[in-house]
Amino acid sequence: MPNAALLEVFPTPGAAPIVVEHIAEEFTSVCPKTGHPDFGVITVRFEPRTAREGGTCVELKSLKLYFQSFRAEGIYYEAVTDRIRDDLARLMNPNWLQVRADWRGRGGIRSITRADAGEVPGHLRGA
Amino acid sequence: MPNAALLEVFPTPGAAPIVVEHIAEEFTSVCPKTGHPDFGVITVRFEPRTAREGGTCVELKSLKLYFQSFRAEGIYYEAVTDRIRDDLARLMNPNWLQVRADWRGRGGIRSITRADAGEVPGHLRGA
Amino acid sequence: MPNAALLEVFPTPGAAPIVVEHIAEEFTSVCPKTGHPDFGVITVRFEPRTAREGGTCVELKSLKLYFQSFRAEGIYYEAVTDRIRDDLARLMNPNWLQVRADWRGRGGIRSITRADAGEVPGHLRGA
Amino acid sequence: MPNAALLEVFPTPGAAPIVVEHIAEEFTSVCPKTGHPDFGVITVRFEPRTAREGGTCVELKSLKLYFQSFRAEGIYYEAVTDRIRDDLARLMNPNWLQVRADWRGRGGIRSITRADAGEVPGHLRGA
Amino acid sequence: MPNAALLEVFPTPGAAPIVVEHIAEEFTSVCPKTGHPDFGVITVRFEPRTAREGGTCVELKSLKLYFQSFRAEGIYYEAVTDRIRDDLARLMNPNWLQVRADWRGRGGIRSITRADAGEVPGHLRGA
Amino acid sequence: MPNAALLEVFPTPGAAPIVVEHIAEEFTSVCPKTGHPDFGVITVRFEPRTAREGGTCVELKSLKLYFQSFRAEGIYYEAVTDRIRDDLARLMNPNWLQVRADWRGRGGIRSITRADAGEVPGHLRGA
Amino acid sequence: MPNAALLEVFPTPGAAPIVVEHIAEEFTSVCPKTGHPDFGVITVRFEPRTAREGGTCVELKSLKLYFQSFRAEGIYYEAVTDRIRDDLARLMNPNWLQVRADWRGRGGIRSITRADAGEVPGHLRGA
Amino acid sequence: MPNAALLEVFPTPGAAPIVVEHIAEEFTSVCPKTGHPDFGVITVRFEPRTAREGGTCVELKSLKLYFQSFRAEGIYYEAVTDRIRDDLARLMNPNWLQVRADWRGRGGIRSITRADAGEVPGHLRGA
Amino acid sequence: MPNAALLEVFPTPGAAPIVVEHIAEEFTSVCPKTGHPDFGVITVRFEPRTAREGGTCVELKSLKLYFQSFRAEGIYYEAVTDRIRDDLARLMNPNWLQVRADWRGRGGIRSITRADAGEVPGHLRGA
Amino acid sequence: MPNAALLEVFPTPGAAPIVVEHIAEEFTSVCPKTGHPDFGVITVRFEPRTAREGGTCVELKSLKLYFQSFRAEGIYYEAVTDRIRDDLARLMNPNWLQVRADWRGRGGIRSITRADAGEVPGHLRGA
Repeated sequence: MPNAALLEVFPTPGAAPIVVEHIAEEFTSVCPKTGHPDFGVITVRFEPRTAREGGTCVELKSLKLYFQSFRAEGIYYEAVTDRIRDDLARLMNPNWLQVRADWRGRGGIRSITRADAGEVPGHLRGA
Repeated sequence: MPNAALLEVFPTPGAAPIVVEHIAEEFTSVCPKTGHPDFGVITVRFEPRTAREGGTCVELKSLKLYFQSFRAEGIYYEAVTDRIRDDLARLMNPNWLQVRADWRGRGGIRSITRADAGEVPGHLRGA
Repeated sequence: MPNAALLEVFPTPGAAPIVVEHIAEEFTSVCPKTGHPDFGVITVRFEPRTAREGGTCVELKSLKLYFQSFRAEGIYYEAVTDRIRDDLARLMNPNWLQVRADWRGRGGIRSITRADAGEVPGHLRGA
Repeated sequence: MPNAALLEVFPTPGAAPIVVEHIAEEFTSVCPKTGHPDFGVITVRFEPRTAREGGTCVELKSLKLYFQSFRAEGIYYEAVTDRIRDDLARLMNPNWLQVRADWRGRGGIRSITRADAGEVPGHLRGA
Repeated sequence: MPNAALLEVFPTPGAAPIVVEHIAEEFTSVCPKTGHPDFGVITVRFEPRTAREGGTCVELKSLKLYFQSFRAEGIYYEAVTDRIRDDLARLMNPNWLQVRADWRGRGGIRSITRADAGEVPGHLRGA
Repeated sequence: MPNAALLEVFPTPGAAPIVVEHIAEEFTSVCPKTGHPDFGVITVRFEPRTAREGGTCVELKSLKLYFQSFRAEGIYYEAVTDRIRDDLARLMNPNWLQVRADWRGRGGIRSITRADAGEVPGHLRGA
Repeated sequence: MPNAALLEVFPTPGAAPIVVEHIAEEFTSVCPKTGHPDFGVITVRFEPRTAREGGTCVELKSLKLYFQSFRAEGIYYEAVTDRIRDDLARLMNPNWLQVRADWRGRGGIRSITRADAGEVPGHLRGA
Repeated sequence: MPNAALLEVFPTPGAAPIVVEHIAEEFTSVCPKTGHPDFGVITVRFEPRTAREGGTCVELKSLKLYFQSFRAEGIYYEAVTDRIRDDLARLMNPNWLQVRADWRGRGGIRSITRADAGEVPGHLRGA
Repeated sequence: MPNAALLEVFPTPGAAPIVVEHIAEEFTSVCPKTGHPDFGVITVRFEPRTAREGGTCVELKSLKLYFQSFRAEGIYYEAVTDRIRDDLARLMNPNWLQVRADWRGRGGIRSITRADAGEVPGHLRGA
Repeated sequence: MPNAALLEVFPTPGAAPIVVEHIAEEFTSVCPKTGHPDFGVITVRFEPRTAREGGTCVELKSLKLYFQSFRAEGIYYEAVTDRIRDDLARLMNPNWLQVRADWRGRGGIRSITRADAGEVPGHLRGA
């Protein structure tokens, strides 16, 4: 089941702002209603606090293991997005963070769910 | 015929704003003038009210059945978009909602019809 | 329901062999098991008999109406392909004919069904 | 020759604003200088006035016939765009309207010509 | 774990040869060495025996459940392909059958594994 | 109307066999039934006789003018292909020649018509 | 060598603002350092002054000849963009003008150089 | 190891602002944790100071050698982006500069890291 | 330097013939002439001997390390392909094996080098 | 003007047959009729004689300079292909060689010219 304890961080390397994006193309969880697997692409984009502010960035391998911890979980699309947003925002306390999930869909309808934390720049909202 | 009674909702799962998008790639209705079938892709994008505000999201399978209820309906492009916008806005009372239909077209002309409800963010209008 | 009586022909225009291909990108029928609509692309490829042999070609608008007659029919993938092959082969008695249906699929699996009539050239089989 | 009298309208179906886009992929006219045919894709995007304001939308088949009336016309790229903008703006008196022509080009240079009428939203200008 | 008992068949509908192809885009199993999930696209192509010969075709939903039964299985690439080939060939006893798995890969290398049964037409081998 | 007198040739430049292909992406004629324009891509592929054999190749600008001479002609798909095959085969007397027309289609069905002259290599037939 | 005297104009056809874009996909000049040819795509986008203001547009064939005049010129990427911007801005005195060159690159690095004149709309800058 | 001393500049050629972009598609460094090579595409976009301001642009071949100097370096994604931003900003002192690295990724997750210097135009941030 | 001792095998899992393909998208070596790095995609396709014949397949992680051993090697395109063919053919003694390298190229020319071992099926040669 | 003296060779590195392909994406010559430049992609594919037979391969940089020697030459499409075939076949005396030129075209028609030398494998002819 989703396990935020798997997540690790490292200190933001520099003093100037950066924007980081991780795109996990092999995410899978289980639909709690039908028991069938769901497949999606999870994109996480964030601006960490700088080194001076004690900022941190999520470590890549730990993020992979965290995503794998959803593999057997029965959980809805919207809850996946919310959960990842909350776990990562709590972990890094970034300036802002966006989570987007592109689901492969079922029965001819595919879905995209998005969740933001902090002050996402205006032109990136809903993108 | 289009049947909004098929639509069901579930409560928005979280407290922070999310944006949801459903893309139905197999929509079909009938042209009221010629009797020939029309084919299109319907995209619905919305920001539901949050859990605290009693917000709701449309349930995916019910949305599929609702779209299927247009299959034998004679209805114009613009009226399809209007109808879906009105039915979904009434159902969920979201912060904002966009409907976009990309029609395969006829006689060398393909069309896109769009309808908005509520305060759609400026940079998403007409997109 | 599928209605081969809608099909019309016109005489092959020339004396030398030709190969004709029609690609119907908006085919839809109904799954007899679930009642949900199926969507696919139907490709028909054939070599008509020549003018001298009294050959004929299916007329395009009649082919469209014939395909539309499947719209409310509950019929399996393989049976659609078989039915179209049989109806068109009987209609035109061509040198050879191939039918291929590319289905949009369900539950993460999409399918292609193929049916041949007559002596299809070797390098085109299963293509 | 270009004939705006071919154009017909129907009343905007709803009370809320919509945006409509028609993409004619088979436009052809004649270069007045060389006599060779020009080929392009014409995109018309507009926000009609609402039903309450007596708004109208151009009827699709009439638009097709109107575009076909340019087939034998000797007319420059920029004049095509201007002419369509003026004819459609006069016909519908929309809130705003954009015309864009993507020409296949000649001699290694392809061109795009654009013309606007009314208050086109800022982020759509020149798009 | 992989469960061939989930597979069901239905009789080949017609008398003339057909070729069927199923493409499962959401296959996942587990690497027995690392414990990390593998993701791939499984393509199954076959020519069933005809109705007269008592031929059968695998039923689509049962195929989906069969593929899902690999979800928690630790199994190598080549063994997945072999296993599916063997299970389906035993089930349907087709004229010929091909299985192809396109794996998303690891560490910058992606792989394709193929397995055939029966007399696959020459120009389709290794394709 | 189609005018083969516009076609010119030049001598094949070399002694060794060559294969030439011309792809005209802006072909248009008129449907004799509806009066609406048809649009297509015409591909001509041929092996001219060699210089020693007195072989000739069609000159490119003359081919363009020849194709333009179909612009106002009411003529069916299959007849276009036949006519071009006959005119060019007579003009050049090549070892072999293929004509393929990819039509943009009407009402959701697009078509490809092909016509051959002489001994087209086996693996190129119907391609 | 680059020859602005080749450029010709014609009067802007209408009273309302238009935006014109020319995309030359076959531009070539010579690297002054190595003597090797450079290849790129030049895009020119501008809003001419209106007919009432005495506005003019660059004539297409003259633009082609002007671009061809760079063929033997030894000139750096940035200087090409600057030169074209200056020559065309002087020629047409437009409301604004953008030049963008997409170079095929060398040694694994490809470059894009851009130069603006006048008040380019904000959302188009650097695009 | 990364060597900024390899970088050379040339004076900005003109008086009007330009925007330059270099896209290095063959960047490789080494992961300091695993010792495995990382591969990415580095995009550098900047507005140099003008000729009047004594502005300079990085010379292309020197940039290539500078990028090659990372080949054997063990360095994290975020540090690569930071390092390049710092080295190039110090070298050219441009009006603004953006560095973006698109990494091919590992274990199903690919990443994008971005770093800015100076006043990057708002609509280009995070792009 | 290229080190075939890194390569490991595992026994072919089944009795029936299979075809395996590995596509390494991140191959890099060094040009012995210029000292600049070369980048390419290496595809290895082979039919291992069956389990009964004592056949073996190359292990994926060892293949990755083997490819990484070329990273600092000065070696020509054709020699890379030859070397990999020879090392893998000696390792597995397969029924047949193909190596193909798609190089990113230099100075506007990109290259593909291919090397075969054993009886490659005819329709796969040079593909 | 085309200068075969620029071409250099190196000995085929191995004893087993290889197939080499060079794709020059930036070829340009001049149309002898109009004086306008022609642009194309030249593909050369060949099987050199083996090391034992004293086989040679064309050296890549010399091939680039040879192609550049056509830059100012007035020469027809078919003659370019013939000339390159003859020059390279004489240079290397390979087992077989194919030249293919994909021209960007003029006036809506693009062309492909091909020339072979020696015993090109059947399934590669005209491809």
